[in-house]
Order: sequence, then structure tokens, then C-alpha cells
Amino acid sequence: MAGVDVAGEFETIRRLFAPLAHPEWGRGLMDDVAVVPSKPGHDLVLTKDAIVEGVHFLPTDPLDTVARKLMRVNLSDLAAKGAEPFGYLLACHWSERCGWPERMSFVDGLRADQKAFDVALLGGDTVVTPGPASFSMTLMGWTPKGRTVGRAGARTGDLVFVTGTIGDGWLGLQAAQEKLSLEPDRVAALLEHYRTPTPRVEFAGPIRDFASASIDVSDGLVADLGHLAEASGVRIGIDLELTPRSAAGQAWYDGRVDEQAALESLVTGGDDYEIAFTARAADEAVLRREAERRHLRLTRIGQVLAGEGIVARFGGEPILVDRPGFTHR
Amino acid sequence: MAGVDVAGEFETIRRLFAPLAHPEWGRGLMDDVAVVPSKPGHDLVLTKDAIVEGVHFLPTDPLDTVARKLMRVNLSDLAAKGAEPFGYLLACHWSERCGWPERMSFVDGLRADQKAFDVALLGGDTVVTPGPASFSMTLMGWTPKGRTVGRAGARTGDLVFVTGTIGDGWLGLQAAQEKLSLEPDRVAALLEHYRTPTPRVEFAGPIRDFASASIDVSDGLVADLGHLAEASGVRIGIDLELTPRSAAGQAWYDGRVDEQAALESLVTGGDDYEIAFTARAADEAVLRREAERRHLRLTRIGQVLAGEGIVARFGGEPILVDRPGFTHR
Repeated sequence: MAGVDVAGEFETIRRLFAPLAHPEWGRGLMDDVAVVPSKPGHDLVLTKDAIVEGVHFLPTDPLDTVARKLMRVNLSDLAAKGAEPFGYLLACHWSERCGWPERMSFVDGLRADQKAFDVALLGGDTVVTPGPASFSMTLMGWTPKGRTVGRAGARTGDLVFVTGTIGDGWLGLQAAQEKLSLEPDRVAALLEHYRTPTPRVEFAGPIRDFASASIDVSDGLVADLGHLAEASGVRIGIDLELTPRSAAGQAWYDGRVDEQAALESLVTGGDDYEIAFTARAADEAVLRREAERRHLRLTRIGQVLAGEGIVARFGGEPILVDRPGFTHR
Repeated sequence: MAGVDVAGEFETIRRLFAPLAHPEWGRGLMDDVAVVPSKPGHDLVLTKDAIVEGVHFLPTDPLDTVARKLMRVNLSDLAAKGAEPFGYLLACHWSERCGWPERMSFVDGLRADQKAFDVALLGGDTVVTPGPASFSMTLMGWTPKGRTVGRAGARTGDLVFVTGTIGDGWLGLQAAQEKLSLEPDRVAALLEHYRTPTPRVEFAGPIRDFASASIDVSDGLVADLGHLAEASGVRIGIDLELTPRSAAGQAWYDGRVDEQAALESLVTGGDDYEIAFTARAADEAVLRREAERRHLRLTRIGQVLAGEGIVARFGGEPILVDRPGFTHR
């Protein structure tokens, strides 16, 4: 069949990936398997995301940032569940354009983020494809036994919070597609957010301790809170004006004529990788302290109500948000 | 960007994959993560394989057998390490030809093998690609703490064994490509072996208890024993005439003029998913009993020597095997 790997599967593993392997559990990537000892009193938490060139990343995106984004997207899933990451397995489906320089760039990205987030490579597979490149990662972490935070714990009267800012992922995609007219430094900030979002790994502890339900914002704030409302059997109300915006996001917003439409774009765009969660009102003060200690912005954007679905308000009035983010519900 | 999923990501998960999820640990595939409790006194063993249409499987291969082969290839890795499988994560990169019927076929294959091998779906991702379809699986199992069998334990004087028969995977590929002239029932048997090899999951226990080093035969018997010899720092000698052949393999072999060339094809073709392992001579009898109890063919094909590399003998004389399986070393 087709698919001779010009760079060589074994050479790719030996030269590029083996140096990233966990010194003990990864077995030098030479034994078909990884072996991870049990962590007594803990649960194993696993997530897996796949990305495809031309679908989830642009053919023009540098491969080091593609690797970092893949890792960060997965790290974000674990953080929202209160889990501490430790390692990952990786499948690389290299396209024909992925020679040594491209593979080295990809591995550079992995190396940087392994160090930044204290995770190690455990194993995986490297293959070639006659189509566009794609990658998938299985990321693993631990939570103390029974303490993984789900989507289903929100209760009426809880408050709704979100970390960081919302909309930069979507704006960054517009920037990458050169659809945005903003000052160069604003564009650069958004582009960086799109290519290497910051997963809130540092906030996993407070989420575990205080969140009643939690989700990371990937489909879009409104859609993801919709998932959470559905799983919890509650209604969630948010005020669009309260949605936190970055400096670049605010600059874009200030240039819009239709404020409501602009807010709708920001809360449905997705790709934010912030944590949206619910918590008891009594825990708001301690959550704010925990966020401040980490220099992390934390914004209360709404509350949990009786009923079902999600209601977005603008100027205090419920509005109909009719965007793709919603269809995913 | 491109890549609208006509069948719908959420619908695919809800209708096709959710019924396959582990009832507890998979969280109904609705929570971004799987949560697996620690198994005290056990190590977690992980493996990951990726397959691409046109490279690892043929565009004409039915998708139910593609799914089953992906699972069996991974199961084979765990079996050779003495691990007991329990669950998997899956990334499906659907091509444009993968509508509902194709996805249902793929899931049919998974369902059948989940039942056959007692594993459950834990999570994953489903995306679309404008290129050929590809899939990757992370399979997980447990071994008692510290008991995972590696490649590195072979000692001089050990014997070399292989389960089942060798060459059917390669012959099956020839059959799938219609390059084989044999009786129809022979062709059918080989085709079945190529599409749905039988991983030796049942033999994981004896491997764990008695093998000094072990590997599953995927690259080819000679190449894989070469990996084992290298990792163990020993030399491995095998007699090609001892290599076990299936009835169909024997029928093909009987039709060859050049016996040595025929044997070389069988031992370098790969895709066998049998277990090649070494064990002390004193354990041969108990290994044979364990194999018999399982109605599993077990063949002694050689011995572990001092030195390095692998020597294949034909008619008692060392021969040079110069085939692709070797270049992988």
C-alpha cells in the first residue's frame, strides 16, 4: 500500500519523541506500552481530542503551536474537572509536507509545553497519511478519589463564574484569517490566544474544592453552559454585558455598532479554553481569593435558576441567541 | 474552515458511541473525561495504535472489520505484555465517505469485539477530515504491580516460542489485493485472518507468569525478535522450518518452488498479532499445558544465545534475510 514514511517511523520515535518520554513509565518508547503505577486514593481522569489540518487548524499555522494547542485543549478539559495532569499518549498522522523540519517544530512545541505544564510523553503512534495532517492526544491526570467535578452538580441558587476572558479564541481565528482590522499589537495578542490558549491548570484545585459543576469553554460560552444546565437539570441565566473581555476584545467591541450582535459573537464563538462553573454563593469570597492569589481574572456572569435551558440577557431582557454554538446542544 | 460533519458530531456520539460506553467510568460520554478508579496493587498498562485508509487498511475493507482490527492490534500489544484489558479511548477521523451507514458498520465492529474481549469505551473524539479516514485507539489494561513483561528480559539458554501460526497476515493482505491463487476457502480463511486477527488475550496470564521477554508480532517475526534481542542484549537463533503455518499457509507454501524464499516471506511479512516470547527451558512443560488448556498452538522455534542480533537458519545453516522487516530494526 501507499504511505512510505520518508522521515522514518523508528527514527522519528528515537530522535524526536524518545527524549520527551517519561523517564520511567514511558519505557523509552521502546516497549509498545507505557506502564503507570496506581496512585492509591486517586482516580485516573482521561480525555482525548483530535485535530485535523484545514478543520481545526490552518495549513498556515506553525506546527509548534499546533502541538501546543492540542496539548492545551486537552489540559483545559482536565483543569475544568479539577484533575492534575501527568502524562499523555500521542498519535501523529503526518501529511506529506511533514518532513524533519516540520516534525522537529512540532516536537519543539511539545517540549515547551511539557515543561510549562509538568507532563511527560508516555507513548503513542506515528503514521503517515496521503491526506491532510491530523493529530490526537490522550491526556491523563489524577483527582483524589471521587472528587472529579462533573457537569451535573449545579443547584438552584448557585452562582455562575468564568475564568479569564471570553471571545479571544474566536477573534483570534478571525485574525488568523486576516478578517480583522485592529492595531497590530491587538491582532498579535488575539492570534497568540487562538494559537496557544492558556488552559487554567492552576485553578484545578479551587474548582475541585468549590465548584458544584464545571466545563471548559470550547464550543462557546452559551453552548457549554447549555450542556451544563442540561446535565444538571437546571436553568442558567447569564448577562451578556458581564462577560469578561480582554483589552484586545474590548478594542474590537468598541468598534462595533450593534453591541448585542457583538456580544453574541463573543459568547458563541468558542475556542476560549476558560473554565465556566457554578458554585454556592457562600463560596464566592474564597473563590475570589484563590483566583487573586493566582493573578487570574474571575467573573460572576449569572446564576442558576429552576427550570431548564439557558437564558442570555442583554440590558436585563432575555434575548434569543441563534448561532451555531446553540445547535450543538 | 472546512469540515462540516454531515452526520453530526453530537448525534454520532449520542446515537452510536454512547451505547458502547462503560456504564460508570465513561460518564455516558457526556463529560469530556473518563474517570477510572485506581486498582490497588496494579499497574496501568497503555498502548496506542493509529491506522490510515490506504496505508494500514484498504479502501475496500469493510469498516466493521477495520474497527475490529484496530481493537485487536491494540489488544495484541497488551496480551504480549501480560496485561488484562478493560477499556479504550477512540479518535475517529471520518472521511467524506463515512456517512451514517459506514459509521454504524464501524460501531457494529466495536460492539462485537467489546463483547468478545470484555472491554468498554471510555471516551474519545470524533472529527471529520477532507482526506482519507483514519482512526486511533488508546487501549488500557492492568497488570499486578511490577509484573508487566518487557522486551528486555531474555537470557542466554532461554527458549523462543511463538503462539498460533505465522504468515497468515501477510498472505491475507495478498488475498485482499487479489494476488493469491488458492482454493476459495483458503483465500477466505486468510482474508479473515488479515481483517480480524486473533489477539492472544487468553494467554496473557501464562506470559506474565513464565515469559522472560515478550513481544507481539506486528512488523514480522524476524524483525520483532530482533527488537527483543536488542533490548535484551542477547542473540536469538530461529529455525525457519519450525515456524508454524496454518492449513492455508501450508497450502500456499506447498505450491512454492523456492522453499527458503517462501519461508522468508512468511517470517518477514508481519501483521500476525501472535506472541513471540522467551522462557526458561524448565518452564516449557507448564507453558505447553497452559497452551493446550486454551486449545492454543504453541511452537518452539529457537533459542537465546550469547551475542547480539538475530540469526535465521534454513536447513541448519544461517541465512541472510534481507527484507523490509529487517530495515525496521
